[in-house]
Amino acid sequence: MNAEIIAVGSEMLTHRRVDTNSLYLTEQLNNLGVEIVTKYVVGDDLDRLAATIRLAGSNSEIIILSGGLGPTEDDLTREALASAVDRRLIYHEEIAETIDQRFRKMNRRMAEINKRQAFVVDGGEALPNDRGTAPGQWVEDSGRIFVLLPGPPHELKAMFERQVLPRLERVVPRQAIETLVFRVAGMGEADLDQTIAPVYKKYTNPATTVLAHNGDIQIHLRARCETKPEALALLAEVGSQIEPLLGDRIYSRNGEPLESLVGDLLRKQQATLAVAESITAGGLADRITSIPGASEYFAGGFITYNKAMKAELLGIDPELLKRCGAVSKETAEAMALGAKHRTGATYAISLTGNAGPATDGDEAPVGMVYIGIATPSGVVSTHRQFLGDRPRIRAFAAQMALDFFRRTLTIVV
Amino acid sequence: MNAEIIAVGSEMLTHRRVDTNSLYLTEQLNNLGVEIVTKYVVGDDLDRLAATIRLAGSNSEIIILSGGLGPTEDDLTREALASAVDRRLIYHEEIAETIDQRFRKMNRRMAEINKRQAFVVDGGEALPNDRGTAPGQWVEDSGRIFVLLPGPPHELKAMFERQVLPRLERVVPRQAIETLVFRVAGMGEADLDQTIAPVYKKYTNPATTVLAHNGDIQIHLRARCETKPEALALLAEVGSQIEPLLGDRIYSRNGEPLESLVGDLLRKQQATLAVAESITAGGLADRITSIPGASEYFAGGFITYNKAMKAELLGIDPELLKRCGAVSKETAEAMALGAKHRTGATYAISLTGNAGPATDGDEAPVGMVYIGIATPSGVVSTHRQFLGDRPRIRAFAAQMALDFFRRTLTIVV
Repeated sequence: MNAEIIAVGSEMLTHRRVDTNSLYLTEQLNNLGVEIVTKYVVGDDLDRLAATIRLAGSNSEIIILSGGLGPTEDDLTREALASAVDRRLIYHEEIAETIDQRFRKMNRRMAEINKRQAFVVDGGEALPNDRGTAPGQWVEDSGRIFVLLPGPPHELKAMFERQVLPRLERVVPRQAIETLVFRVAGMGEADLDQTIAPVYKKYTNPATTVLAHNGDIQIHLRARCETKPEALALLAEVGSQIEPLLGDRIYSRNGEPLESLVGDLLRKQQATLAVAESITAGGLADRITSIPGASEYFAGGFITYNKAMKAELLGIDPELLKRCGAVSKETAEAMALGAKHRTGATYAISLTGNAGPATDGDEAPVGMVYIGIATPSGVVSTHRQFLGDRPRIRAFAAQMALDFFRRTLTIVV
Repeated sequence: MNAEIIAVGSEMLTHRRVDTNSLYLTEQLNNLGVEIVTKYVVGDDLDRLAATIRLAGSNSEIIILSGGLGPTEDDLTREALASAVDRRLIYHEEIAETIDQRFRKMNRRMAEINKRQAFVVDGGEALPNDRGTAPGQWVEDSGRIFVLLPGPPHELKAMFERQVLPRLERVVPRQAIETLVFRVAGMGEADLDQTIAPVYKKYTNPATTVLAHNGDIQIHLRARCETKPEALALLAEVGSQIEPLLGDRIYSRNGEPLESLVGDLLRKQQATLAVAESITAGGLADRITSIPGASEYFAGGFITYNKAMKAELLGIDPELLKRCGAVSKETAEAMALGAKHRTGATYAISLTGNAGPATDGDEAPVGMVYIGIATPSGVVSTHRQFLGDRPRIRAFAAQMALDFFRRTLTIVV
């Protein structure tokens, strides 16, 4: 079954607000095996809202609306649904009384306008609200289910759990949904897609999505079957065809990020790591230490943002810096060796390059990055030419350094 | 004029993703005087996407789509727009060549599927993408403007600014919109709002918005008038009432971020800066060096993630570390002095603290942060207890260090 989620309210259309209710609703519905196919944010406009409800109802079996159930004149969700399903709104005296009692408990009087909240679409069911005045609604029409929920997240969540979920469980066919995530480094998104598309295109189930961010690619396979063993078997079938195509470019099969995986490898070896960063200036160490407990294997290191610092803090021969330049294989390797020597760590990663925007003096072209890794048995290095602006080049450089280190560690082990 | 924004991509319909591109687009369009009336998130489904584009086009004059311009078969935005406006897609050899050249620069070959990105809706205009392979599109049809933008935020923003904004400015009726931005550090969002609300609540024009992120607060005043002088006069009237309420907590009046302002102050003094980071482990240097040209004043520094590194790299007396603990005023001051001494920089900032999640051994409570600043005339320090999770504590610590340094520099000057 498919569902659509409509967030109602002009305040949700400002540049500071995101609709987060839909994330909660998506998770809940996915758990039932229901897919979300479209989400909307609509302002307080009766005709537009009614047209949106009609469109959603023509696509999907379940339509969930949040917000617009308050007492004021710009709360139009009740009217819009009534218009969309072409029914009247019926006044329920008992709902008005419940709201009135709620106010009395707080020693306040119900305002006359709160009576607007006592109207329910003809044939629909009011859903009690334990945490606020606005009742929700459950309306079935032509094989569609329309659910109205209040906008405040704590009211919406409580009502969904207590009122909506039990009702949905009775109507949604049972399904098992399982997910397999590959994380991949060291290749472009288009290359990766061309490589694995011949496999995943053969299947509509599992559904495959490919996400790329700063050189890090995630492949999500999502299988929907009647039982969990069937879903897992289907994932194994497709996953086992994708794995050999990507080989060691897959670094994780459980969603774990690269910095966490590198931490695990270091912990297993009881090894420690230091860094010497120029182009990324702390960005690599920042990623490594984003993992709780990184102090077990991460010692620290050096940020050497000019040649003098490379010479003084890492003990690199100024002649070498002059001869080869700050952005070079020789300097990257000397930086890694210097950092390892001065910290006493088992490994050291170095990064030097030009993030732009300008190329000055004897420097390398914008986007050129060298990475060095000092190991117990020597030093290795690699380089890449990245495209893009300053933040992108710095982010790609850190990602590439982590991936190069992962590969080096895997070989050493 | 009205606009609608459609985010495309099944990955945007998962419970972990929110569409943030629309927030940027909303702000930009609002600045032109264009209101957003509906937002959508639609999965990779050709018919559904085409139907959504048709609905949006029937409501509003400007329809902006983001995402789904990639090279893979699930990138369907081009096809969906062609279907919605009932036109063909035309292959542009020169676009394919531009993409090919981009790959060649990286010493890679363009995959065959990238040619999909060279198709443009008949009669539409391709919008060049400086930061990625996917060109955008500008298509006019029956008095409607349809704009296709790439999904990655840095590509979308660059293309919007360079290609879309100038075109929109020619078609959207003129209004004078002027903005005044105060950036504030060193106080909480609620405190700030309570302080300035009595002023800004008196005005509906300018519109005031307060944005807070990791201890950094922006106050945006947006005046819409018929002429520019009127708008500027209105901003001056309100701004001059807000300024005295906040005093030196305002660090910038032009939107400039704290790291950029600190760079300007150092440049003026022809001074240099070094860091010694423990809790933030490179996060402070990463922020400082995000500003192009930071190498003029930023020398580098040390990441000392354990006591041994603090002793070895910064020359701190191990007895002091043992006696006072790694998270202490004494250690913070010794770290700053050590970093200044070993780099020869004019100033050094140090950070030590516990970002959590665990408090182990002799350590300080989670969220405790000490900051030291070594200056030509000595050393100063301060501390704060932050609340929140690991990333929040680390981000607040870096923000506080920059602000403490700004105040110290301002006094020294």
